[in-house]
Amino acid sequence: MSDCSLCKVPILPILWSDLNFRIVLVTDQNIKGYLRLEALEHVSEIYQLSESIRQQMFSLLNIIEINLVNIFHPDKINIASLGNMTPHVHWHIISRYKHDNYFPESIWSTPIRNNLFENTQEEISNLKHQLTNMIKQRDAEQAFDS
Amino acid sequence: MSDCSLCKVPILPILWSDLNFRIVLVTDQNIKGYLRLEALEHVSEIYQLSESIRQQMFSLLNIIEINLVNIFHPDKINIASLGNMTPHVHWHIISRYKHDNYFPESIWSTPIRNNLFENTQEEISNLKHQLTNMIKQRDAEQAFDS
Repeated sequence: MSDCSLCKVPILPILWSDLNFRIVLVTDQNIKGYLRLEALEHVSEIYQLSESIRQQMFSLLNIIEINLVNIFHPDKINIASLGNMTPHVHWHIISRYKHDNYFPESIWSTPIRNNLFENTQEEISNLKHQLTNMIKQRDAEQAFDS
Repeated sequence: MSDCSLCKVPILPILWSDLNFRIVLVTDQNIKGYLRLEALEHVSEIYQLSESIRQQMFSLLNIIEINLVNIFHPDKINIASLGNMTPHVHWHIISRYKHDNYFPESIWSTPIRNNLFENTQEEISNLKHQLTNMIKQRDAEQAFDS
């Protein structure tokens, strides 16, 4: 577990976190609007999370997807939990564009273009603000429901 | 929509279906224990599904994962919703093995081995039986809760 890179504090910018998850901005791939949702608990598969944490995870995935669509206007969203090299539950949520370096293949395929795409400071700031607000609103609604 | 291959009846074997989803066995990849969960509604992104259908989808993903682990004993499970070529919500749920043709890369990467892996009839039959039973049990529990 001490060898697990996801058990350490990430080098990538954290946009939001709580006791169970953190959302980090992946900045090293020349892909615009690429986030990772990382479980803080060290388990390798989703079924090993508790029911309530898994529910929270799926709700966060949905919130992340909506915010990527709102801010980055991608042609498609890709969502994946692989973890073959780092077996610690985490999701890649990726804005895909018809002109990105891999489209229509996955970002794990061989790139077919070689362009640079960077998030602007305004996009990052909006993303952080809107993610935080939407998660806060969801938490308030859930507290009201229970 | 008429051009969408997922809007047609699949050629692949259907292991389970209801009014919202079907689970099909992917048999054309030389990968053991590879299922696809396909929404029957033609929408491209997950957030476009209704809340109740999305909840059902995540619950089915979890059931599929548990059953692949129980029957195929993989080293890792990979789950992905890409749809760049077929923008109609569907998930790949894939049993991964350290000796499979792509490990530790994704199955969308260039293969690094060239072996044949086939599901046995017993595995397919068990999978169909256990998936159906677990989904039926979940539906009964939900009916009891509501």
